[in-house]
Amino acid sequence: MPEAQPLIDTDAVVVGAGPVGLFQAFQLGLLELSAHLVDALPYPGGQCIELYPDKPIYDVPGVPVCTGRELVESLGRQLRPFDVPMHLGQEVAEIGPSGDGRFLLGTAAGTRFRARTLVIAAGAGAFQPRRLKLDGLETLDTTQVAYHVADPAVFAGRRLAVVGGGEAALEQALRFAESPDHRAGRVTLIHRRDVFQAPADRIDRMRALVAAGSMDLVIGQVTGFDAADGRLRSLDLTLTDGSVRILNAEALLVFFGLSPKLGPVADWGLAMERKQLSVDPSDFRTSVPGIFAVGDINTYPGKKKLLVSGFHECALAAFGAARHIQGREPLLQYTTTSSRLHALLGVDGSPRSGSAG
Amino acid sequence: MPEAQPLIDTDAVVVGAGPVGLFQAFQLGLLELSAHLVDALPYPGGQCIELYPDKPIYDVPGVPVCTGRELVESLGRQLRPFDVPMHLGQEVAEIGPSGDGRFLLGTAAGTRFRARTLVIAAGAGAFQPRRLKLDGLETLDTTQVAYHVADPAVFAGRRLAVVGGGEAALEQALRFAESPDHRAGRVTLIHRRDVFQAPADRIDRMRALVAAGSMDLVIGQVTGFDAADGRLRSLDLTLTDGSVRILNAEALLVFFGLSPKLGPVADWGLAMERKQLSVDPSDFRTSVPGIFAVGDINTYPGKKKLLVSGFHECALAAFGAARHIQGREPLLQYTTTSSRLHALLGVDGSPRSGSAG
Repeated sequence: MPEAQPLIDTDAVVVGAGPVGLFQAFQLGLLELSAHLVDALPYPGGQCIELYPDKPIYDVPGVPVCTGRELVESLGRQLRPFDVPMHLGQEVAEIGPSGDGRFLLGTAAGTRFRARTLVIAAGAGAFQPRRLKLDGLETLDTTQVAYHVADPAVFAGRRLAVVGGGEAALEQALRFAESPDHRAGRVTLIHRRDVFQAPADRIDRMRALVAAGSMDLVIGQVTGFDAADGRLRSLDLTLTDGSVRILNAEALLVFFGLSPKLGPVADWGLAMERKQLSVDPSDFRTSVPGIFAVGDINTYPGKKKLLVSGFHECALAAFGAARHIQGREPLLQYTTTSSRLHALLGVDGSPRSGSAG
Repeated sequence: MPEAQPLIDTDAVVVGAGPVGLFQAFQLGLLELSAHLVDALPYPGGQCIELYPDKPIYDVPGVPVCTGRELVESLGRQLRPFDVPMHLGQEVAEIGPSGDGRFLLGTAAGTRFRARTLVIAAGAGAFQPRRLKLDGLETLDTTQVAYHVADPAVFAGRRLAVVGGGEAALEQALRFAESPDHRAGRVTLIHRRDVFQAPADRIDRMRALVAAGSMDLVIGQVTGFDAADGRLRSLDLTLTDGSVRILNAEALLVFFGLSPKLGPVADWGLAMERKQLSVDPSDFRTSVPGIFAVGDINTYPGKKKLLVSGFHECALAAFGAARHIQGREPLLQYTTTSSRLHALLGVDGSPRSGSAG
């Protein structure tokens, strides 16, 4: 475990910074509750960004069409007036009572919270990238075998193998083949078949670069590797005809998508039903007072895993959190008419750092 | 009663074409159920349009700011692929069983439906304009005393008195003072005090027209009228100093806002709690099988009168309606990935009249 950091006191920790977690923090803000967002992924957006960043969504009320990326950007803009800190790339590692009715929550990165309430908005759980399974591969460090690119400079100028057939694989391959800042020594894109799940213009661009000799494409699978002194030297690629080709490579970037995994949530002693957290639909509280669950991770009679349901759950859970903290029913105010909400949102003309516009 | 029209058979009649009613029709469409919308107002939008057409709303998820008018326009655009007929300016006059498990519903205008389900999305009830209370005023016809302007040509060229201090009063006064098509003989705007609730640019425009002598403004109240042979001749205006002025006028347009009124919904034999319809939050069914209620008109434990809650209720009520009609759980499909939904929404490239974009 990393060294312990000072405790952060807050009204609420929202576990999960997907669309529902973002809107949860917004709803808490409207009720003047402080919140921190924690997510295992290194960026906000959850499933929306991981699974369908560029696919259109047609059923967000009042938004006839938007991509997952656009939705997450809009939700982030909406949340901005509340200046909610986000602790990204941090899995929740431990949770427990603080002894005074509050919760202690620690992340694997060492961030520690003392929170009056928790709202679990963890979607299908803490997403983890699907791994490439090769004996010994895990002994190589993250500058040589990576499932996320946190800092592209690490890979600049090196011989890179990028594995996968989805949008993430293509984007990274194109970035390292083209970006003037981070151009790789050489990029080879490897996929088990010659079909890619990505926007047509990105696929076209990749094929153009391959045709121009600016990058390589291999249809096949990574079936072995060679390393010396802890350094990756080459990969064994098994082609579709069964033959094996050796590819010199200094780093391997794998984009096989994400595997949902409940992570520590499953161990928290909360009432569950088929891997979902059971909640009361009047305020989406779990079986533990002060812990709420919203979005795809919860279940109640009639539950549908829809964004619009998650958003509603956030609103009522915020009221539940306020009741838990304040011991009374908070006032329902409307953003159209409440001058108090206008001041909070920074839209009353008073000087303020945030703006909802 | 107007002459009976042929019965319209449908899966669902949605009573109320406010934002929640519009989204209800959309959700029914996603489940391939046919729907008709009925509203007492002559246009869609309900409270959003009547009470805050130009006030910003900040808490629609993923929409950092929009006006009521913009929200209603977006919801209308979102609904367009389903070609849902709207029966506007029609109050629901009667409802009863059809004898085969369906419902018969008739409007005051004579439209008649036989529906497998009803979804009541009537907000605070059937809105009705607040009346100007003067003995005998109700004996004058709607070409002389009006609370809505269905056809502006009726009032063109005549001496008009427009009463009220809100946006509707100003818009109508400006229209009849300025529009080349419908210019009145003379427009007098009457309001009890010299303060107006309308966008600043509309107020400025009104004052400019008054200053230029193109229309009149009287601060006072209508306290009497004179009519002969059923024709309005003049109004008595009591000014703030108590003096009375006679204003020649051929028509009186009154915009005092809307008074919520439950209307026939209150007589339908549905379980209610403090003027709200009691519903089961698993699918927002009322106490009558096949009748659902969504939005501000319903109540259940934890209910908050929020747009985002109304939208969620629509989604689950659509599933409830499908279960009621089909006797089984409909498949939950996602608009991001389902090619069937893409075809319904007209976004699969196939030829279709509607488009969600």
